[in-house]
Amino acid sequence: MLTDLPFTLPALRAAYAAGLAPAGVLAEMLRRIRAADDPGIFIHLIDEAALLAEAVALGPYDPDRALWGIPFAVKDNIDVAGCPTTAACPAFARMAEADAFVVARLRAAGAIPVGKTNLDQFATGLVGVRTPWPVPRNAIDPAIVPGGSSSGSAVAVARGIVAFSLGTDTAGSGRVPAGLNNIVGLKPSLGALSTSGVVPACRTLDVVSIFALTVADAHAVFRVAVGYDAADPYARRVVAGPMPALPPALRIGIPSRQTIRFFGDDAQQAMFDATCASLRAMGADVVELDFTPFYAVAAMLYEGAWVAERHAVVGPLLASDPQAVHPVIRQIVGGAVGMTATDAFKGFYRLEALRRAVEPVLASVDMLCVPTMPTFPTLAELAADPITPNSRAGTYTNFVNLLGMCGLAVPAPPRADGRPGSVTLLAAGGRDATLASLGQVIEAWGERTLGATGWARPATLPALARAMPEDIELAVCG
Amino acid sequence: MLTDLPFTLPALRAAYAAGLAPAGVLAEMLRRIRAADDPGIFIHLIDEAALLAEAVALGPYDPDRALWGIPFAVKDNIDVAGCPTTAACPAFARMAEADAFVVARLRAAGAIPVGKTNLDQFATGLVGVRTPWPVPRNAIDPAIVPGGSSSGSAVAVARGIVAFSLGTDTAGSGRVPAGLNNIVGLKPSLGALSTSGVVPACRTLDVVSIFALTVADAHAVFRVAVGYDAADPYARRVVAGPMPALPPALRIGIPSRQTIRFFGDDAQQAMFDATCASLRAMGADVVELDFTPFYAVAAMLYEGAWVAERHAVVGPLLASDPQAVHPVIRQIVGGAVGMTATDAFKGFYRLEALRRAVEPVLASVDMLCVPTMPTFPTLAELAADPITPNSRAGTYTNFVNLLGMCGLAVPAPPRADGRPGSVTLLAAGGRDATLASLGQVIEAWGERTLGATGWARPATLPALARAMPEDIELAVCG
Repeated sequence: MLTDLPFTLPALRAAYAAGLAPAGVLAEMLRRIRAADDPGIFIHLIDEAALLAEAVALGPYDPDRALWGIPFAVKDNIDVAGCPTTAACPAFARMAEADAFVVARLRAAGAIPVGKTNLDQFATGLVGVRTPWPVPRNAIDPAIVPGGSSSGSAVAVARGIVAFSLGTDTAGSGRVPAGLNNIVGLKPSLGALSTSGVVPACRTLDVVSIFALTVADAHAVFRVAVGYDAADPYARRVVAGPMPALPPALRIGIPSRQTIRFFGDDAQQAMFDATCASLRAMGADVVELDFTPFYAVAAMLYEGAWVAERHAVVGPLLASDPQAVHPVIRQIVGGAVGMTATDAFKGFYRLEALRRAVEPVLASVDMLCVPTMPTFPTLAELAADPITPNSRAGTYTNFVNLLGMCGLAVPAPPRADGRPGSVTLLAAGGRDATLASLGQVIEAWGERTLGATGWARPATLPALARAMPEDIELAVCG
Repeated sequence: MLTDLPFTLPALRAAYAAGLAPAGVLAEMLRRIRAADDPGIFIHLIDEAALLAEAVALGPYDPDRALWGIPFAVKDNIDVAGCPTTAACPAFARMAEADAFVVARLRAAGAIPVGKTNLDQFATGLVGVRTPWPVPRNAIDPAIVPGGSSSGSAVAVARGIVAFSLGTDTAGSGRVPAGLNNIVGLKPSLGALSTSGVVPACRTLDVVSIFALTVADAHAVFRVAVGYDAADPYARRVVAGPMPALPPALRIGIPSRQTIRFFGDDAQQAMFDATCASLRAMGADVVELDFTPFYAVAAMLYEGAWVAERHAVVGPLLASDPQAVHPVIRQIVGGAVGMTATDAFKGFYRLEALRRAVEPVLASVDMLCVPTMPTFPTLAELAADPITPNSRAGTYTNFVNLLGMCGLAVPAPPRADGRPGSVTLLAAGGRDATLASLGQVIEAWGERTLGATGWARPATLPALARAMPEDIELAVCG
């Protein structure tokens, strides 16, 4: 039954190989959108006739095209040719003449963009409620926020509407919504994916991110999307290899008992403790680290000069038509007014000193493992206080891009109360594939289905592979 | 005769090996200071008794200590324990409790700091006249400026008072005074020499630089001074190896005929043309490059956000006691007032785009060769207009640190009017030793003596060595 077909890469490829036409998948996708009955997910859907025309243009099934016939959704701060790009701000909207660099790469591999998804306006937020469009419903629990800023992209994947989606991630927008919707959120190393054709949030920190139901799918899309773009001044040359075997003696840093933060959410703490116990059981050396300097870095993102990067984008509209900007975004971005260039440099000096402080800490482990978020923000909490629950949601994400790290939010066994478990793996830039290797192990633990679909999770993996030294990932960044 | 002893490393080492005591060298140094009769060179001289005590403490001559008994001068924005550090601003002065990291390394190798030298206040200038102390006299021609900001350090070396000196270089302060005084100015790769204990100009761009009479001496001091300093957030791990053989097919980029700038100084153009002809004669492939993007980068240093870095240092004094700041410095640094953090980020975006634009240009050559300065600013010109001649002096220096390059100002055969010839070699960060290899070739050309001393230049070198691929410098920066 097409209605039962999991929209994962292996399942879709198998169906195509067996003779299914992309038009059937697209029709099923449209059925799922109607069934979801959530007007908040998409800001713009591509016309059905245009979708079908693109499917026909693919020609016969070609297994050599990595994403042949795979439908995907695109956060509405990323250009798709012929669609308006709104950044969730109608007054800011402009028609995209061309695909963003990354969208063009995916399309060239056979993937079909189907629509533009809702977001926290100007990608400023981790909750998904800062939008003039209807707020997407969390795919798991309607009381909690969908997460943001890539809210629609995460929910579309969690509901099985598309096989993957693009988000962006500056402060955690590609990880927090994954954690809140029981899916995978891959936040690449800075510069690995071009940001040409993306509305900036903080240009020095932005990345395009990938949501998928499984780590393997997210990593496969990542490998297609990676490509050096000489027109993007922040592009870096990153080699995106296959997932390597894990180091034989894996050392994983976690926040120490004294510095870990759950804001009273005992179920979240139990979820994280259980994951750490599983990591230890598989032979990893799990070491507690003082997270104080990481929190100090995190605080700089919204309290420091980097808000001025958002102001560089939103400032003109804020000056000419302040009412066109969402009131919460207006308040946040307005914080840059009066911030001097001298303040900015003082911020860089402080960040550089903090980077040096965490350098030896990071060098002492292969990667970090943190809760994706410390607790679950509810819609009611956000209605009462639009800032504090959002800030808390960034506890384990805000420092990551400032430190040049890559990240992968991975589903873990669900909590005792049924809400999804999720941890995020973090490593130095360039080690994306190593994170995926461990992520594949973690996503196979416990009893779990994919997103909000009820589809079976991937088959359990064999025990941790023993790597030879030459198998360990060596990424080239420059 | 001690009065005839060249203060170069080989000559001093030979004299020490032959039994000369450092006390004799220090006494001769003091005699030379008196003979120079220039109260503008030193802001602070270390007490003679203290100097002699340090010389005695060295013990017997030890050829294994690279700088045993070598007197050197220190720009007065670099800490020497027990001396005030003024940055040429009496109101800013503070007593240094400890040596700057680099001074400590040199002292540990047996070198003896003898005093603190004059500078453009807060290292802001390329002319050397922006100081409340007397302006040091140019060692070659009293009509022209000494050059800055490391004025005193350059003149002290050019007059043979010390064997080498430390300067700093943000915009060209370690190169322009070398070019104006017929000596070598080595501007290391960013982060190679610690800036701990240095009054910042622009912290993200500052380097400690080295003046010497010969390339070999400058490079020898560089190799001692290099050392990773974990306490300096901008330190980088740089391997400072010996001078390698030059690449067999050397490609050298120069400003194109259409974009080169001499501001009407035909003698300077003839000097540069002659040097390029010599480079071609030795077999190098000299290629003309469009310098427009380099000039665009250069303009950002004083017209863009980086002035705010100077403001981060001088701002408090400027606010509390503006009269304590030199009027020209007040005007320049005051330019940061009203510059917003948003402006700063817009500047970074523009710089990043320009960096990408010059990347393929730089990758097409082994190094650049430029005139050290386009013309010779005179004291009279500066008295009439304190800004324009200074800005022009930075034509070939201002872009270098913003692009992360290393540089070496090298004497070339003198101009027809007797003023010193000087070209600067530039390469990507980490290639300091390769620049020195070519610098040694150039400094041996033509009829020339060292600085203003009349001492014979080093013996002519053999023709360009033929390098095997494995001999080519591979510096590690990280």
